[in-house]
Formats: sequence, C-alpha cells, structure tokens
Amino acid sequence: MTCDYIQLANDGVQRLRPYQPGKPIEELQRELGIHDVIKLASNENPLGPSHRALDAARHALDQIHLYPDGAGYSLKAALAERLGVGADQLVLGNGSNDVLELIARAYLQPGDEAVYSEYAFAIYPLVTLACSARPVEVESHLFAHDLAAMAEAITERTRVVFLANPNNPTGTWFNDHALDAFLARVPERVLVVLDEAYFEYVEESHYPDGLRRLARYPNLIVARTFSKIHGLAGLRVGYGVAHPQVADVLNRVRQPFNVNIPALAAAEAALDDVDHIENSKSENTAGLVQLAEGLAALNLEQIPSVANFVAFDCGGDAQPVYEALLREGVIVRPLGGYGMPRHLRVTAGTARDNERFLAALGKVLGDR
Amino acid sequence: MTCDYIQLANDGVQRLRPYQPGKPIEELQRELGIHDVIKLASNENPLGPSHRALDAARHALDQIHLYPDGAGYSLKAALAERLGVGADQLVLGNGSNDVLELIARAYLQPGDEAVYSEYAFAIYPLVTLACSARPVEVESHLFAHDLAAMAEAITERTRVVFLANPNNPTGTWFNDHALDAFLARVPERVLVVLDEAYFEYVEESHYPDGLRRLARYPNLIVARTFSKIHGLAGLRVGYGVAHPQVADVLNRVRQPFNVNIPALAAAEAALDDVDHIENSKSENTAGLVQLAEGLAALNLEQIPSVANFVAFDCGGDAQPVYEALLREGVIVRPLGGYGMPRHLRVTAGTARDNERFLAALGKVLGDR
Repeated sequence: MTCDYIQLANDGVQRLRPYQPGKPIEELQRELGIHDVIKLASNENPLGPSHRALDAARHALDQIHLYPDGAGYSLKAALAERLGVGADQLVLGNGSNDVLELIARAYLQPGDEAVYSEYAFAIYPLVTLACSARPVEVESHLFAHDLAAMAEAITERTRVVFLANPNNPTGTWFNDHALDAFLARVPERVLVVLDEAYFEYVEESHYPDGLRRLARYPNLIVARTFSKIHGLAGLRVGYGVAHPQVADVLNRVRQPFNVNIPALAAAEAALDDVDHIENSKSENTAGLVQLAEGLAALNLEQIPSVANFVAFDCGGDAQPVYEALLREGVIVRPLGGYGMPRHLRVTAGTARDNERFLAALGKVLGDR
Repeated sequence: MTCDYIQLANDGVQRLRPYQPGKPIEELQRELGIHDVIKLASNENPLGPSHRALDAARHALDQIHLYPDGAGYSLKAALAERLGVGADQLVLGNGSNDVLELIARAYLQPGDEAVYSEYAFAIYPLVTLACSARPVEVESHLFAHDLAAMAEAITERTRVVFLANPNNPTGTWFNDHALDAFLARVPERVLVVLDEAYFEYVEESHYPDGLRRLARYPNLIVARTFSKIHGLAGLRVGYGVAHPQVADVLNRVRQPFNVNIPALAAAEAALDDVDHIENSKSENTAGLVQLAEGLAALNLEQIPSVANFVAFDCGGDAQPVYEALLREGVIVRPLGGYGMPRHLRVTAGTARDNERFLAALGKVLGDR
C-alpha cells in the first residue's frame, strides 16, 4: 500500500479526536466484571422516558420495514403548535448533535471560523474541524461563557457562534440581559447557535427563552433535544428552530431519513406528556440540592449548576477518583478532555443513586 | 433583514435540491382521502422485518432513556464474524446513506471531484454537492454504469468514485471481471465506494462480492444496508467495510451516537435470521418474474433488473401515469429527477400487491 488514508483525509478531519462518550454500563460490566452498576455520566433522565412515549415507540415498530416520513410532518406539526413557531422554521435532527452538525456543514468551509467558549460542549469544535474550518475558543470567566469576549472574537471570517445555555459540562448559564446585549453586537451575517439542550430544567427567572428572540434576530438558531428531560437519549431526536431560510438550508443538507420511525413517534408523544416533564423537573431539582449538599459536606468545590448535573473539583487529579468510582460500580464523567483535569461531572440521578454516588465518593476520597 | 441566509450558505449547499423520497402512505391518504393504499415506491421488503429483529427492537426500548453504545460494539462484533472482516474495518451508519455522506465529508473539499454514473443513486451527487465538491457524472451505457468511461473520467482532482452494484433506480449490474478491470485502473489515492445495498438479492453467478476485494484494494469501501433484504428501513442502519485507516477516519467524522438503540439491537438480530433472508430472497425472485411478465404483457419496455425493483418505460411521459396510479391507491416512483421522465420504478411486492399494481397500470394505460 502506497497511500496513507489518514493523511488523504481532509485537513480538519485528520485533526479530529472523537467525542468521548460516558462509559456504557455494559462496557464496565465487561471490563471489571461488576454487575451492580449505576451510570451518572451522560445526563440521562433517571425517571426514564414518558410511558406515553414508550408506548408510541412500541406501536411504531409495526412499521419498521418502511422508510420513515423523511419530512417528519407529524412531529413538526406538533412542535410548531407547542412552541408557537412555523413548521417551516423547524429542522429535525438525529439528536440535536445532528442539528449542530448540519449548521456547520451548511455554513462553514475551510478558512471560516466558528467561535465558542472554553469548557463549552465538545461537539462545537468537532463539527467545526470536520468541515476543516477553524475553531476559535474564547477564554471563559469562572467556567462560564464570557459573552463580551466572545463578541470581541468575531472577525470577518466568523460565520457561526455556538452558545450553550446552560452549558454542558459546567452547568453555568447567562441571563436575558446578557444574551440580548450579545445578540445586538453580532452582525446579521453571523449565525448564532443557541444550544438549549437543558432548557426545560432551568428555573431562574431571568433565564432567556431563545425562541422569543427569533423574530428579532434572523441569524439566531435555537437547538433543543428529546435526549434530556424527555428521556429519549437512546432514540436520537433533536430539533432546530430558525428563520425559514436557515431552516430551508439545513433541511437541504440533512439526510433524507435522519430520524427513524420509533424516534419520530416517541418524540411526538413525549411532547404531550406534561406530567412526565414536570415530574422529571421536580426530581432533578431535588437531586441537584442533594448533590450540592453532599458535595459540600465532602468539602468539594462545585460549579453552581442550573442543569441536570454538577461539575465538582476533586481537589487534585480527578482521573484516579473516576477510576476508583468505577470499581465501586459508579460511572461519572471525567472532564480532562475539556481541560478540566481536576473536575468530575455527575448527573443528578434518583435520590437513591445520588446517595450511592455520594457514599462511594466519600469512601474513595477517604481512601486517598 | 439585510441578509439572505440561502446565499450565505456554502456554494454547493445552495445548489442542493433535496432527495425526493417515495411518497409516504399517510401523505397520499391525507391528500387524496384514499385509504386502501399500497406502496411499491421505496424498495422496502414486502415481508416486513424478521420477527427476531422486531423482538430485539421491542426489548431494546426498555433502554431508550440511555444513550446508545456509540461504538456499536455488539453489532460490529456480529458483523465482523458474519462477514469475515475485522471490527476495525467497520463503520456503522444511520442507514448506508450516512456512510456515503461520511465518505464525502471525510475526503471531499471544494475543488475536489467525485465521479459517478448517469442514472446512479441520487445520493452520490447530493453528498458531493453538500461538501461543495464537484459531481462528475459519466454517461451510462444502456442505463448501466460504463466502467471504462468512468475510469477515463478520473482526474488529478478526483478523490472518490461511487459505484452502485446493482444500481438503483435502474437495477443494472456489472460482473466480477468488469469490476476487477476497473479497480486495476483506479489510482490508490482515489477511493472507490462500492454501494451494495441490494447485494443479498442478486443471484447471478458472476456477480462480484466487494468484501473479497478489500485485501487487494485498500482504496475500496463497501457499503451495505439493513434497509432492504433485512426489512429495517424504518430503523436506519447501514455499514461500511474498508481498510482500517479509512474506517478510522470515517469513525472520527460520524456523530458519536449515529445509530439508535432499537436499530442496533434489531440489526444484530436480523443478521442471524437466515430463514427470513432466504424467504425474502425467494419472494423477491418470484416478484421480479411476475413483474417482468406483467409488464411484458402490457408491451412496456423494461430495464432488466437483478435487485428488488424494476424500472420500465411508460411509452411516453411517466408523470401522468404515476399520478393516475396514485388515484388507484398505488404508489410507485417516478424517475424524472433521474433524467428518466418516461420511466417509473416499481418495487417487487407480495404477489397480491404486484397483481394489484399490474391491474391498476393496465387500467391507467388503457384509459389514455
């Protein structure tokens, strides 16, 4: 063989280091032979999916030999009604990851720049590099987006800015005034992607709803997901809401059948299950308090979070703590890949799982 | 608004015309109020999925609040064993469409060229344009790939060649000698994508198995799908098999969770259901004969097909025939978008559906 097929790949693709997902439970079982495992590593809903969503998915399996409705007619109609937007403003994705990627692919080319914050969701630089565009990372302020500095970082080459509110993995957020001040500074030719994957969990009174700003800012794209509060991470459904021209472009780029049959059905049913959403929110609020108190009792510094997880400082290298927790059958997420080698991120689980995590953490730290 | 967000999109993206899927049954029901509808438009398996695959999908729904195993460990292990390849040679896709797109995104940039045949699967130029690369269409010979002309069309800018064997929507194929002669002429730096979505249906003795050529041609990528003979179009699972370096690159570019939980489970179970595969093949062989005889009886010229569909010449503009068939509750696929305005493509269905299609076609043509 005379060719190197890595070096033949596009420039940015060669520099890609794949996303490191939370360790799957089966993998830990395989590797360490531990069977009683809890996973608080991927910000999944500890209550599981809505039963209505699960039933809808089950019924939809009767049709799996047929292609899905590529236009997602029924789910888009339900979303449009629920969100008060036009169906022509919507693009469905195989998770909101897909939506983020579509934006990059539609608007970023080699030589272009995409701006995002230090410690922001790892997918932003990945989708940027995959297009061989330049990821421009802006220093954060106390682990939160520094929106003023991000506005400063916009150049003639900038085509996209990624904002996460709240941000994953830090749980930090910015308020309505900060967002409006930022949007007012961004040129209309630059698309602002507002990633609201954890939108439904936030209870702060000045937390901004991106959808209410779409009419004023045609360059704004709001991304949301069914993976978090709706408990459908395993089905992969997310969506983007944008100006109809932007939605049109993203719909041209997406794969014709990017969301599958059980996913479309379950997402539509989940939207209607208001009780499950409320229960999930209450459970999460209680879980966040439990984790915050438990971490404080262990004298660990934590980043205040409004999402469904909290990142905390282990007081030293987090990797041995992560590994010791694995041996206790508790999977959390190390953040070394985010440049936070002293931090771990833990998802708010059920009261029982949170308790087990805190006890395991206390034991592990006591053993040091 | 001062910006046009269509014109701000990447050059190739602006020129994209989305893939036109087969009309979904519900859409026809909605539009015409017809309830007894058959769809022979998307080359779906008329026997449906394997019951084992369906059961596996149903059980897997218990986990849908968790992220899928992004590495697809279990399905890749099963595929590797079944196909006699290394797991490191595999990339899983959200349908084989995803695999085709990953190849384009990893290896095509503005200024690059991708070669494919006239009348070949519509996705090849779409994934090429989405990367703002140049689609180079090579004239076909009697609706089939002209491999010699395709080899001639390779230039210094060519990075990918797409071959479909058999081809959709024409059903044409090329034999082992033709493929080997072609591969011997292609420089190693040019990737050859051999799309074998309909592989399992073909019964010709000189039909080549791409997998057997991977060791000799490191630039070869074989793409296959669970959407056709396995009857899982609605779940979206396909895969690529390639040199480990190429597979590595494609795995870097793909979304971390591109195949969802029921899809992974169903695909793995479908692989093992040899009886269902055999039954699907027999049913298809009988269906192809029934369609060929029925079309011949109507004096319609058809393109000989080895896949699970047949394209035929309506003897004039096919669009009114397509529309009249819709009013009879029969959905087939018009091929105007492929530059074949006189042709329709019909999927081999059950004996009963084929009969209904032939009767409706006879009626519609008689009415002209």
